[in-house]
Amino acid sequence: VLRPGSTAEVAAIVRLARTHHVGLVPQGGNTGLVGGGVPRAGEVVVDLRRLARLGPVDTASLQVTVGAGVTLAALQRHAGHAGLAFAVDLGARDTATIGGMVATNAGGLHVLRHGAMRAQVLGLEAVLGTGDIVAANPTGLVKDNTGYDLPGLLCGSEGTLGIVTSVRLRLLPAPARVVTALLGVDGVAAAVDALAELRGCAGLHAAELLLADGMALVGRHLGLPPPLDPLPPCAVLVELAGDGDLLGQLGAALDRLGPVVRATAVADDEAGGARLWRWREAHPEVAAAHGIVHKADVSIPLTELPPFVDQVAPLVAARAPGAPLLVYGHLGDGNLHVNVATAGDDDGGAVDAVLALALDLGGSVSAEHGIGVAKVSWLLRQRGAAAVRTMAALKAALDPDGICNPGVLLPA
Amino acid sequence: VLRPGSTAEVAAIVRLARTHHVGLVPQGGNTGLVGGGVPRAGEVVVDLRRLARLGPVDTASLQVTVGAGVTLAALQRHAGHAGLAFAVDLGARDTATIGGMVATNAGGLHVLRHGAMRAQVLGLEAVLGTGDIVAANPTGLVKDNTGYDLPGLLCGSEGTLGIVTSVRLRLLPAPARVVTALLGVDGVAAAVDALAELRGCAGLHAAELLLADGMALVGRHLGLPPPLDPLPPCAVLVELAGDGDLLGQLGAALDRLGPVVRATAVADDEAGGARLWRWREAHPEVAAAHGIVHKADVSIPLTELPPFVDQVAPLVAARAPGAPLLVYGHLGDGNLHVNVATAGDDDGGAVDAVLALALDLGGSVSAEHGIGVAKVSWLLRQRGAAAVRTMAALKAALDPDGICNPGVLLPA
Repeated sequence: VLRPGSTAEVAAIVRLARTHHVGLVPQGGNTGLVGGGVPRAGEVVVDLRRLARLGPVDTASLQVTVGAGVTLAALQRHAGHAGLAFAVDLGARDTATIGGMVATNAGGLHVLRHGAMRAQVLGLEAVLGTGDIVAANPTGLVKDNTGYDLPGLLCGSEGTLGIVTSVRLRLLPAPARVVTALLGVDGVAAAVDALAELRGCAGLHAAELLLADGMALVGRHLGLPPPLDPLPPCAVLVELAGDGDLLGQLGAALDRLGPVVRATAVADDEAGGARLWRWREAHPEVAAAHGIVHKADVSIPLTELPPFVDQVAPLVAARAPGAPLLVYGHLGDGNLHVNVATAGDDDGGAVDAVLALALDLGGSVSAEHGIGVAKVSWLLRQRGAAAVRTMAALKAALDPDGICNPGVLLPA
Repeated sequence: VLRPGSTAEVAAIVRLARTHHVGLVPQGGNTGLVGGGVPRAGEVVVDLRRLARLGPVDTASLQVTVGAGVTLAALQRHAGHAGLAFAVDLGARDTATIGGMVATNAGGLHVLRHGAMRAQVLGLEAVLGTGDIVAANPTGLVKDNTGYDLPGLLCGSEGTLGIVTSVRLRLLPAPARVVTALLGVDGVAAAVDALAELRGCAGLHAAELLLADGMALVGRHLGLPPPLDPLPPCAVLVELAGDGDLLGQLGAALDRLGPVVRATAVADDEAGGARLWRWREAHPEVAAAHGIVHKADVSIPLTELPPFVDQVAPLVAARAPGAPLLVYGHLGDGNLHVNVATAGDDDGGAVDAVLALALDLGGSVSAEHGIGVAKVSWLLRQRGAAAVRTMAALKAALDPDGICNPGVLLPA
């Protein structure tokens, strides 16, 4: 494990690796879920957490430059001291690093409003597999049409093209107010209809999908009465944030929706909001309490969400009979998490069947976790031969010796 | 000139070009300003305007797929019929095509709120220089972390990696209301301060910078009384759009700003808004009325805007004595347009001096027009040898025979 303290040291490591034909595995907070930061065959781990510089917050442009090793929580605190916020938030905030979040194009709860990490990255510095140090848009120009989008290409490349050392990030005004609401609807199709109306609310920044089975499991696990009584087949957890009349925006959307929404619980204070969010956030821990959790992280086109949810339960039941199943996630961007809890290591092919269903419906086998090592075998099915050939050509161009995270994303 | 009517025909053209070593120049509406769509040395023009399919508007996901040859105005009408809008708007809307706007990562007035074209492109289909047809994220998944961001790489590549044939685009709810205001301030530094407060308005979607000299020229040219009396040294034209209390948002920002804003003119109806916008939009025609216009399209970090504006006038006066100078543009993203009107073809090196000043201040020599042919000689100074080498390697990977728009963006 090497722990460089500067971009120059990272560049020296890359030069040595090229000379000695040694693979490098960049590592941040080690919170990835697809094995992209785990050495596999004698590679050297490059731990980037010493690159932890927090640059001054530029309050005129709402930007900041931070080192790859800065944690998300440290960035959030730093921005908060200037009255600003960072658009992406994750449960792993205390450990996940900005460099890792860029490398994996991390998503989270607010993608429907602000996009994933790629949308926050204005510029970056990286050491490519060629050994070249590139500094793309270090001053964070919002408009800079001078050549190819190197920051966007490196974002989501999972360390296979080079090592990101620092990033110029977009910040946001911290929202003045937050309103949270749980809306009960009759099914997934109604939830998609509700989303279309809710998008008219300027402040909408989260829209999560919950199903009756999951809410019932959470209620039993936490010993809570149902948040809506009677418990609806499906619920949408929405959050609005900003300086506008958020309750007014929400009320107008509910008026337009009429009987589509059967029941509502609204909170305009932090404690009430946290109580509603508990119903969503407890899903992973409830799954873990029921056995070994097998996870599929899929994107589904919104129009295909109803058939996906209809078909996923019998598909899983046929392969893992009796295994508790939780389906929940980010309605606003069509990203569902499917958790299957089994007694043993074997899921009977349940996750593979879920991924295949996602593909069949025009979806993606990896919404926000990436390909890593775990999903390399799915890349060809997802993207097709021409796209995989193109990606391999891009990798060969920037990492001619194949030293950058070999075996990750593309077959070694 | 070849006029393909399908992606398969574009692919056949690329195959022929590879076989016969003929360069291809993709062309859309021919509204580019840096020569990227103009054949130079016997290349074949590939006119893409027959690829004019308008796919159905998906009102659940707020997306649409359109052919590369669709004009911006046709897309706007198509989205409007579904109660939606497209985020990027340009004066050339009746002629500019979506394919060309993707290839040049076109910007416009609303970049501070919605980003440029790259932020609107969820997926695309393209024929690369290798002849491969890649279809990246055709279903417009908002989250899809399965490999490199091919749409982002092709966006802004100016036809040098391949030919975009269709695009999956993000749409927006059409705004319920629009409020326009002209705010008089004492100088550029005060305008930057005002912008920082105005960003707190959820509805802010345009913030343009005007200077006293330019407003005086516009007033004389159009025979209008000053929009603010007395005419301030500097004015910020702001527009808010959405369904919130826009006048309330603006009023709160003005309260916070206090004496920074010396005078205001506000319009909450379309005609009044158009009258205020006239002061901004007439700048190019006023420049053209004074001679041959030499244009610099630069990005400047917001903190450096005051010194840039201070230094640009004497710099131009020394090289083009007596030439009318207009400096105006997109305050919200630091993109200024510098127009120098001279009697003859020669600007005495004024534009080059302005570009060099932009570089010295950490800015960009091309904010939204691209590199094309006109600015190839500036690319190395802007991006540095390592980045240019990296771009050349990417081009060689996707266009191994150099048939895609040779001589554009990178030296031939």
